[in-house]
Amino acid sequence: MANYPMEDITGKWVIETVLPDLAIMLKVDEVLYSGHTGFQRVEVVHSDVYGRSLLLDGKTQSTERDEHIYHESLVHPAMLMHPEPRSVFIGGGGEGGTLRETLVHRTVEQVVMVDLDQQVVELCRQHLPHHHQGAFDDPRLELIHDDARKYLETTDQQFDVMVMDLVDPLEGGPAYLLYTEEYYKIARARLNPGGILVTQSGPVGFLSLHECFTTIYNTLDGIFVHSVPYQVHVPSFITLWGFTLVSDAPLPVLSEEEIDERLAARIDRSTRHYDGGTHIAMFALPRYIREGIAGETRVNRDDSPVYMV
Amino acid sequence: MANYPMEDITGKWVIETVLPDLAIMLKVDEVLYSGHTGFQRVEVVHSDVYGRSLLLDGKTQSTERDEHIYHESLVHPAMLMHPEPRSVFIGGGGEGGTLRETLVHRTVEQVVMVDLDQQVVELCRQHLPHHHQGAFDDPRLELIHDDARKYLETTDQQFDVMVMDLVDPLEGGPAYLLYTEEYYKIARARLNPGGILVTQSGPVGFLSLHECFTTIYNTLDGIFVHSVPYQVHVPSFITLWGFTLVSDAPLPVLSEEEIDERLAARIDRSTRHYDGGTHIAMFALPRYIREGIAGETRVNRDDSPVYMV
Amino acid sequence: MANYPMEDITGKWVIETVLPDLAIMLKVDEVLYSGHTGFQRVEVVHSDVYGRSLLLDGKTQSTERDEHIYHESLVHPAMLMHPEPRSVFIGGGGEGGTLRETLVHRTVEQVVMVDLDQQVVELCRQHLPHHHQGAFDDPRLELIHDDARKYLETTDQQFDVMVMDLVDPLEGGPAYLLYTEEYYKIARARLNPGGILVTQSGPVGFLSLHECFTTIYNTLDGIFVHSVPYQVHVPSFITLWGFTLVSDAPLPVLSEEEIDERLAARIDRSTRHYDGGTHIAMFALPRYIREGIAGETRVNRDDSPVYMV
Amino acid sequence: MANYPMEDITGKWVIETVLPDLAIMLKVDEVLYSGHTGFQRVEVVHSDVYGRSLLLDGKTQSTERDEHIYHESLVHPAMLMHPEPRSVFIGGGGEGGTLRETLVHRTVEQVVMVDLDQQVVELCRQHLPHHHQGAFDDPRLELIHDDARKYLETTDQQFDVMVMDLVDPLEGGPAYLLYTEEYYKIARARLNPGGILVTQSGPVGFLSLHECFTTIYNTLDGIFVHSVPYQVHVPSFITLWGFTLVSDAPLPVLSEEEIDERLAARIDRSTRHYDGGTHIAMFALPRYIREGIAGETRVNRDDSPVYMV
Repeated sequence: MANYPMEDITGKWVIETVLPDLAIMLKVDEVLYSGHTGFQRVEVVHSDVYGRSLLLDGKTQSTERDEHIYHESLVHPAMLMHPEPRSVFIGGGGEGGTLRETLVHRTVEQVVMVDLDQQVVELCRQHLPHHHQGAFDDPRLELIHDDARKYLETTDQQFDVMVMDLVDPLEGGPAYLLYTEEYYKIARARLNPGGILVTQSGPVGFLSLHECFTTIYNTLDGIFVHSVPYQVHVPSFITLWGFTLVSDAPLPVLSEEEIDERLAARIDRSTRHYDGGTHIAMFALPRYIREGIAGETRVNRDDSPVYMV
Repeated sequence: MANYPMEDITGKWVIETVLPDLAIMLKVDEVLYSGHTGFQRVEVVHSDVYGRSLLLDGKTQSTERDEHIYHESLVHPAMLMHPEPRSVFIGGGGEGGTLRETLVHRTVEQVVMVDLDQQVVELCRQHLPHHHQGAFDDPRLELIHDDARKYLETTDQQFDVMVMDLVDPLEGGPAYLLYTEEYYKIARARLNPGGILVTQSGPVGFLSLHECFTTIYNTLDGIFVHSVPYQVHVPSFITLWGFTLVSDAPLPVLSEEEIDERLAARIDRSTRHYDGGTHIAMFALPRYIREGIAGETRVNRDDSPVYMV
Repeated sequence: MANYPMEDITGKWVIETVLPDLAIMLKVDEVLYSGHTGFQRVEVVHSDVYGRSLLLDGKTQSTERDEHIYHESLVHPAMLMHPEPRSVFIGGGGEGGTLRETLVHRTVEQVVMVDLDQQVVELCRQHLPHHHQGAFDDPRLELIHDDARKYLETTDQQFDVMVMDLVDPLEGGPAYLLYTEEYYKIARARLNPGGILVTQSGPVGFLSLHECFTTIYNTLDGIFVHSVPYQVHVPSFITLWGFTLVSDAPLPVLSEEEIDERLAARIDRSTRHYDGGTHIAMFALPRYIREGIAGETRVNRDDSPVYMV
Repeated sequence: MANYPMEDITGKWVIETVLPDLAIMLKVDEVLYSGHTGFQRVEVVHSDVYGRSLLLDGKTQSTERDEHIYHESLVHPAMLMHPEPRSVFIGGGGEGGTLRETLVHRTVEQVVMVDLDQQVVELCRQHLPHHHQGAFDDPRLELIHDDARKYLETTDQQFDVMVMDLVDPLEGGPAYLLYTEEYYKIARARLNPGGILVTQSGPVGFLSLHECFTTIYNTLDGIFVHSVPYQVHVPSFITLWGFTLVSDAPLPVLSEEEIDERLAARIDRSTRHYDGGTHIAMFALPRYIREGIAGETRVNRDDSPVYMV
């Protein structure tokens, strides 16, 4: 890999472990916010490498420089596979990037976004304008600060697409009960016929595939009739990142051209990362991911979740 | 990304910059070798994360845990696209992993491997048995310690496949003159009709694509009639890694099934990473790589190379 | 040295070099301020180890936990060696700790403090209340934001004690012209008969003694009739710290008891670090400091200063 | 503190915690040895800063550049306070530096050195020639590899001076039972009339004084009639280092001149760090050490030792 021999070590660094014995050092020039919300530790920092980054409990959630890769990859495949998504549920997604990508779809009439941590959302609105780009002001949005599971258990709303943009399932963290069989059954009950659910599913590098991705996939695969994994490289996550897309209705296999046509027909502005070719690349999986999924037998349940650490 | 909250900071670490202001800390439990060969600084270390790693001039070259991803990806596409590769040239490749993957092809009758640094090759033979697995003892191998460019200029040998497994083009490093237009013209003259050349081409992450990959691709694309880029995620390189495959003969577009059939027919043992599905995934490119290539105008020339830093 | 095996590496760290190839990593939980004043980069951080710290150009200036060691050691020896200090000049000293220690001497009628950087002083007043403890509100203080050298060249004020509490003489930094022969001659002209000047003089560890201490001492020793070096261990400076105290009048050699008596007679509240025993310990020097001073021949001059790096 | 702005981060580093949340990064160019002896983890590294360093269980024990400060400070005060030391016991001291300083005293007829870890001693003999300078070959030495406590319990030897050069009392470490009341009573029984015992006693910086120093001092002070603490700054220990010197006979208070005379009369070659002035400086204590000792009530006992962490 590339080597920058005269990097100046003096300064402020954010260090983040990515595997046991492996950590990333990012030099930051500004710490715009650091504090604890009651739910989680929050930091907003600025670096030359990534621009502004959001960290929750010490983990990079998204950065100004490459958040579009993550958010476009999370949102658009499910939205385009659905014939006409009108109502969308977003679980988590405090930065507003997922919301922003959802709202560019002209078919969308209503978005319900449920994020537990009001303070994180407010910090993102204040410090991450590049992320949300004003999406929080869209009149189609209903923003709720509550536990996503509790909301889904009690609402009678139905959705065409549900997007789970949650922090990883860490022990003691605020989200591990949003990756279990019980939770997915609750969510499934809130899908309209033909509805699609997609969730961020953790790292899928060769050394990190089994941290949580294979279990999340296996858990969803046991509940829904159709399930598809996909992945994309997000530089600030230091590895490939995985997603799982599921439905009880057959999922269309769209060609590069069909994706490009649907994008052109349905959204207001051009994407930066996602297009037909990117879609094909995301759903083409290297052997170790296919084998990792095939060999997984664990299922996340409320009383026996698979934690990331 | 995942977070390992109780990682013990006390100990020996190898730190390596991957971008300005971004560095990787790897905890190592053993430094098996550290020294300077006259050509370059060499370190062989052992870590829990990667097993044994080779570093040249402070940069990770390959590791026990994931070297198969890099070496299989470098060698097999060119070998399988060629109808019957009998003679193979390897430039660099001191660890022996490229050699090992080349020799499993039954059609191969002769391999000429030219690596400048005899001491590195000897250190790899001693310390990286997992990498070479005895390949250096194969009677089909002719191992030469010389400058690859000088060898190719003076030999009258011709090759079916040429594999460039070189250190990155760093200013003052031993390899930057093996990535230029002049060099590739010398190499092209040594290809048999229908011959294929492939070279490792540096990182292709969203933030590192332009360090050297797009220029190497553009340089080769200006010389050869046909050129194809591809990529794979190598965990220890912390990013996607790029390759360029070129020929003056048309390059077959092989389906997943054709790759699997050719693999089964031609090689002695199973691969670990490469198969038909992996091949398709490697050649499917996200939009920023396609656009990055299309927008590149620089050409590496002896008197104006593009360095990595 | 002590070893804390389960220190968590994830988080925000301030890294600071102390020698080439040697750096300190301090985990911080809050960055209260980071910015550039036009004169220098400023950071105020909070850590469990040190409480609040002030860093200028990446270098720790003082910390809540141990600033009293530095500030008491800088101020009290000169003040007590003087028979009756009424007027005091402070060069630099933005945190207010030097000012605070000066003002506890009942004899003091007037303090002129000249610090170049108004913004640093204001940041310290806001963020470092532990340091200044309200000293900036004392009516005996005249606070001037200007270059100390320019002030001393143009004023006709005279002082009994002059305290130089300046950042280290770094190339390109704001203070290197406040450590030269020319500067000290200007300062000397502003001392009353019997007046004493003291300056912080940089690290005096066995490996860092020659960075600037010996030269500062030698420069002052060539100008003033009497000169005395002393030192104290400041934990957050990671080494012993040196001071030089000079006068044209004979400097009294005070016993432990005489120091304790003068302290009791002259100051309003008790000190935390300084007393008669500490005074004796500070002026007792290990051999390498005595030999280092004796062997130094360099003199700081405006056109040939000795920089710290 | 000094700031080296262009330090290159790429390379091999040894990181060592000195306080919770505070660590030292030392760039090393060579790891001469790393392994585990069965008793402890051992590393011998080379750095530009310190030359060769010995680390046990991740903690720097001594370095080529400054070991003379530690070893001379440990050995000579006790040796010179004794009127005529003929027989000396060394507990630990694997590097050979303590042995080397002991043997320069012409009065010495016999040294018994008991170090648990034969492999450490052999590694030091091989890799740290600067430390021992051939001292292990002196015919006055009897070298025993056993537990120092067990040896002292079973021998009938008596000694004039006993020097405890042990690793710090870490929980689970090999030495914590060599800092307890029970151990010191065993050792006391092996002193000749007028005999002196000295032990390294851990860090005495303002923030680390209470880690183990005050307890070791208090434990010894409860057993022996006379006890004196002293300290010296050892750069590679990143702080002041403490020692405790005890005897049942009155300890002479030697002047600077008396120390220099005894040194001249008794030892074969000149010291590098220790002399009369250094002696005075080492025994002059800042206030917080005096108050820290006075306020300590804990005693190390076998069943309730005070660990360093």
